[in-house]
Amino acid sequence: MLMAALVSGIYADGVTLELTLSAILTQLLGILCMFYTRGHKKEVKRKEGYIIVTLGWIVMSASGVLPYLLSGAIPDFTNAFFETISGYTTTGASILDDIEVLPKGILFWRSLTHWIGGMGIIVLAIAILPLLGIGGMQLFSAEAPGPNADKLHPRITDTAKRLWLIYVGYTAAETLFLSLAGMSFFDAINHSMATLSTGGFSTKNASLAHWNNQPLIQYIVIFFMFLAGSNFVLSYFAFKGKVQRILQDEEFKFYAGFILLFVAMTAVVIYYNANVEISEFHPMPFGAAESSFRHGLFQVIAVITTTGFVTADFTAWTSFLTVFFFGLMFIGGSAGSTAGGIKVMRHILIIKNGLLEFKRTLHPSAIIPVRFNGKTVSEHIVYNVIAFFVLYMLLFIIGALVLSAMGLDFITAVGGAASSLGNVGPAFGDLNPVSNFNGLPDLGKWWCGFLMLAGRLELFTVLILFNPYFWKRI
Amino acid sequence: MLMAALVSGIYADGVTLELTLSAILTQLLGILCMFYTRGHKKEVKRKEGYIIVTLGWIVMSASGVLPYLLSGAIPDFTNAFFETISGYTTTGASILDDIEVLPKGILFWRSLTHWIGGMGIIVLAIAILPLLGIGGMQLFSAEAPGPNADKLHPRITDTAKRLWLIYVGYTAAETLFLSLAGMSFFDAINHSMATLSTGGFSTKNASLAHWNNQPLIQYIVIFFMFLAGSNFVLSYFAFKGKVQRILQDEEFKFYAGFILLFVAMTAVVIYYNANVEISEFHPMPFGAAESSFRHGLFQVIAVITTTGFVTADFTAWTSFLTVFFFGLMFIGGSAGSTAGGIKVMRHILIIKNGLLEFKRTLHPSAIIPVRFNGKTVSEHIVYNVIAFFVLYMLLFIIGALVLSAMGLDFITAVGGAASSLGNVGPAFGDLNPVSNFNGLPDLGKWWCGFLMLAGRLELFTVLILFNPYFWKRI
Repeated sequence: MLMAALVSGIYADGVTLELTLSAILTQLLGILCMFYTRGHKKEVKRKEGYIIVTLGWIVMSASGVLPYLLSGAIPDFTNAFFETISGYTTTGASILDDIEVLPKGILFWRSLTHWIGGMGIIVLAIAILPLLGIGGMQLFSAEAPGPNADKLHPRITDTAKRLWLIYVGYTAAETLFLSLAGMSFFDAINHSMATLSTGGFSTKNASLAHWNNQPLIQYIVIFFMFLAGSNFVLSYFAFKGKVQRILQDEEFKFYAGFILLFVAMTAVVIYYNANVEISEFHPMPFGAAESSFRHGLFQVIAVITTTGFVTADFTAWTSFLTVFFFGLMFIGGSAGSTAGGIKVMRHILIIKNGLLEFKRTLHPSAIIPVRFNGKTVSEHIVYNVIAFFVLYMLLFIIGALVLSAMGLDFITAVGGAASSLGNVGPAFGDLNPVSNFNGLPDLGKWWCGFLMLAGRLELFTVLILFNPYFWKRI
Repeated sequence: MLMAALVSGIYADGVTLELTLSAILTQLLGILCMFYTRGHKKEVKRKEGYIIVTLGWIVMSASGVLPYLLSGAIPDFTNAFFETISGYTTTGASILDDIEVLPKGILFWRSLTHWIGGMGIIVLAIAILPLLGIGGMQLFSAEAPGPNADKLHPRITDTAKRLWLIYVGYTAAETLFLSLAGMSFFDAINHSMATLSTGGFSTKNASLAHWNNQPLIQYIVIFFMFLAGSNFVLSYFAFKGKVQRILQDEEFKFYAGFILLFVAMTAVVIYYNANVEISEFHPMPFGAAESSFRHGLFQVIAVITTTGFVTADFTAWTSFLTVFFFGLMFIGGSAGSTAGGIKVMRHILIIKNGLLEFKRTLHPSAIIPVRFNGKTVSEHIVYNVIAFFVLYMLLFIIGALVLSAMGLDFITAVGGAASSLGNVGPAFGDLNPVSNFNGLPDLGKWWCGFLMLAGRLELFTVLILFNPYFWKRI
């Protein structure tokens, strides 16, 4: 918040005081918490881990509303909380009808919630979720350079620091490239923070469609979205010169392969159905073919990486692409990235296990394990991953039911639930990419906020707290 | 077909000759097959089992088109095949715009395809699927009175015969009750065949809404739909006087519980949003409250049991109920019934396993098995059931994608796929309960036919044939 106050001061946008006050209030809250927990033993037990992670995100979001409320940028608490939790969970769904009128300090704070959220997710994925045994993240931890799966080893701190360095470096690089490509420095740094965290908040009302006549800017964002949705550990290897590790990584191959396949399909469908629809891409500096390719590429990567930037309304293209993008909402990026959703690694395990089930059906007595990255995956982890998938689907349908009970129509309800749970941002129907979440009733905003949080913290971390069993023996 | 010819003769509807000819042609085809397979050894291997079951349904459907084609009732092959496979898979989706103009012999044949399909499903569930090791049906087989899970024991034939007797008995009873309640004998027997098979073909254009002023008729149908969607083995126990077996059966408790809960919700929502919507129920002989209850009860049971009879357009009630009924399409009846869909037993195992995963997360080293009906379920079967669920979801999304590629809008595509795969019948959007599948393009009809077949034969039976591994070592 002090950083946002600094930005506010530089641009003299008139909210410097409010942002400083927010920072002081938050700091006071922190000191209070520290004071009351002084002298407690520092060892954290498994069950406490779930509570700390979930409460951490909620407390962050609750205190993150201060800049919005005090500056009057978002005077309503529900809206401010929605915008903040959408930021910290790197979802990027917004309730703001006019973003461009906001003071620069507030816009910066808004992007910063993404960026901080993204940093949190990296630590979570590297260090905490594998320890809590959640949704197959144990598998990922074995791939990370260093950490021991059994306890919070000092080396995990090193790993997290190294990955943060990459995260910061990528953000700086994107800011530089975007500035060079003609974006203002302020827009560049904001969009870079929203890209690397796979968040999706923009400083423009039209999101990235604002730069539809500057393809270079969009290609730069595409490139960094792709990086943000890939495993940061692979970037680490790349910088260490171990490029072959990337090509050997099964998840990366599928991640890149999925994107290639889906982009090709989307671009072709757009191009051949473009007579009417392509007009929304106007201007098309390099013609319809390049536009079809670029918008297909941009939107597929924006949805798969759960960033949710928008260059065009993918719900207005064709029936097929509407259902197709609805499906994409369930894919998600790589494990160890800042992307949300089910994630590619889990899909690989689920699909492999599904195909092996045919073999198992034919040879009931044979033991046929799933292999990933050349190693046998324990039944325990496969169970874990599949349970995650089932729970995800269950929460999706409950999410859609609750939204529909508030009067949202079919596609808005199912789309809104899928997008919130997957931390994507734009959805369908009334929540389409050129609209926003402001039209939701207050209860709907809270519910979507809950779905975002549950999705972001890999379901189990949050839902386990609703399990009576969890509290019984604490 | 000879039976249909007999009905045709009795009512002198002018298609007796065509129906007889169809019967003769089909018989000739059968004789030809018998002739060419004479002297082959009679022992059937596992792999051959899958081929026989899948081809069986396809050959039945291919020969079942004859009455439609020869009589000119459905002159187009694609349409005739769709109607027949929709009949044999007990789906009940129709391409007929005007049912009531058809000759009685043809209507009878149409209902008969349901009834024969239902008989096939009972044998499949009791005797064949457990042997082929499909989707947890092994679990069901252990509950059946008699059969040994390892080989086709003579006692299985006895069991199948006993269950068929119940099936026939229920059909006769419903026919009797419906006739007594004021339905014509012809309509009564047709609707009874469509009820017990959980099919859904009606002899009236308005389906069961034709009798909206005769609640008694609708309550009779409700009662028999409920029976048809429950495990026939339980009916067997009931007739043996072992009523406590029914109350101990976990699946039955959940089946009845789900229905109670869902009916209550639906009826309340209809009642309190009835100002406009209830008008479609007109006439309401016992007032709005009874109408809300009856239509809620009827449609919930019609969709859960995958019968698909219609008394009112559930897609026109409220947004919530539209999403809600979309969800119901994925539930399905009990194992060992004639209902399609995922089925209650699988949902129980999946939900139990999902909840246990929380315990497993807290106690990673503990072995916590799923229990069903008081017994531990082997990991192998839980795997099997979950793989079924994942495959079902995968086929659903592919199904919807293919339909949307044909230009169907979002709700029509996802609804059509869910309904076809679950063998329900009525769907959403352009395929809503008061519409039909005639508006689909030809390719769409074939695709829905494939989804019906895959869903009806518990996915694995059909999909395993597309697995290269299956053919490699045959």
